[in-house]
Amino acid sequence: MTDISSLSMPALRGPVPLSHLFLHDFVRDGHTAVDATCGNGHDTLLLARLVGADGSVFGFDIQQQALIETGRRVAEAKLSNRVTLLLAGHENLAVHVTGPVQVVLFNLGYCPGGDRSIMTRPETTAIALEQALHLLAPGGIVLVTVYPGHNGGDEEGLAVENWAAGLDSRTCYSWRMGQTNVKPGAPYLLLVQKIL
Amino acid sequence: MTDISSLSMPALRGPVPLSHLFLHDFVRDGHTAVDATCGNGHDTLLLARLVGADGSVFGFDIQQQALIETGRRVAEAKLSNRVTLLLAGHENLAVHVTGPVQVVLFNLGYCPGGDRSIMTRPETTAIALEQALHLLAPGGIVLVTVYPGHNGGDEEGLAVENWAAGLDSRTCYSWRMGQTNVKPGAPYLLLVQKIL
Repeated sequence: MTDISSLSMPALRGPVPLSHLFLHDFVRDGHTAVDATCGNGHDTLLLARLVGADGSVFGFDIQQQALIETGRRVAEAKLSNRVTLLLAGHENLAVHVTGPVQVVLFNLGYCPGGDRSIMTRPETTAIALEQALHLLAPGGIVLVTVYPGHNGGDEEGLAVENWAAGLDSRTCYSWRMGQTNVKPGAPYLLLVQKIL
Repeated sequence: MTDISSLSMPALRGPVPLSHLFLHDFVRDGHTAVDATCGNGHDTLLLARLVGADGSVFGFDIQQQALIETGRRVAEAKLSNRVTLLLAGHENLAVHVTGPVQVVLFNLGYCPGGDRSIMTRPETTAIALEQALHLLAPGGIVLVTVYPGHNGGDEEGLAVENWAAGLDSRTCYSWRMGQTNVKPGAPYLLLVQKIL
């Protein structure tokens, strides 16, 4: 296999590297960013790098273990001072964060390597998305990686897609980005950009 | 309407600004890039800027008027020395360009403001796409903006989608990126990244 990293070209293998490309394009020094589902903390760490010393990142998870792992990762990179971790569901976004926020990131489903019975749920995800959109600065984006492959993941993905497709095109641009030469049930990315 | 440009955030209103985002991410100094359908030359000019003084751009169109307009635009920007314009259909890509190429860009349909009876055709587009993929460097991308709204545009788009969806996932990542809160028939973007 050719090592694309040696070419310094991002390899768009699935929605996660694609979402990282958007983070690099949209997050700048001094911005505020939210990781609504910290999981293992990889995305929180990337956001912490991108917002710079004057920016801030809020990371949410309902599992203590996820926050411990995320905190460890951020501390190792000596970026803890710009990261606030919250043991709370993402439906409490607006309780803890005041806007404007540049990016809100969601990874739906369960935490990789964690307890698979604990996963995001359509009802709370819907609340979180509305709050995220409200908090966004004009030009800012919500990124949602959907994993239809697990139990209930299909329905949750469709619920998010329907929400995004129903947004007023004068205030938001909603996108669906999926790989087409992969098996059905592969994860895909939803992007909503707030215009006003 | 909020002026997003003042925020220096790209506004993702349709596939063209989205494709420009990818061009900024993938094209670097010294690269070779191809605009397979010059049209009014906006994309050719952007590519000419992105490849830098040591890079080169090949622009194709079957309409002399499109090449005149593109040449004028590139000359005004004083970038003619890195751009080669070819009065030829994109199905002749491989005759005029030798790889490796970083990006090949297609805008299907007719030239905006030009003769609407002259448009890209599924048969020649298919040949051009195969050649483009062959010429790509590993990590490089083919970007296709599809306009299903015009006569025959639907079929041409589906033909390209089927081609992309049939590519071996060990050698290519194929993506479809479309806005979801717009009318049916809105343009969308296909992206194919070559891996090896």
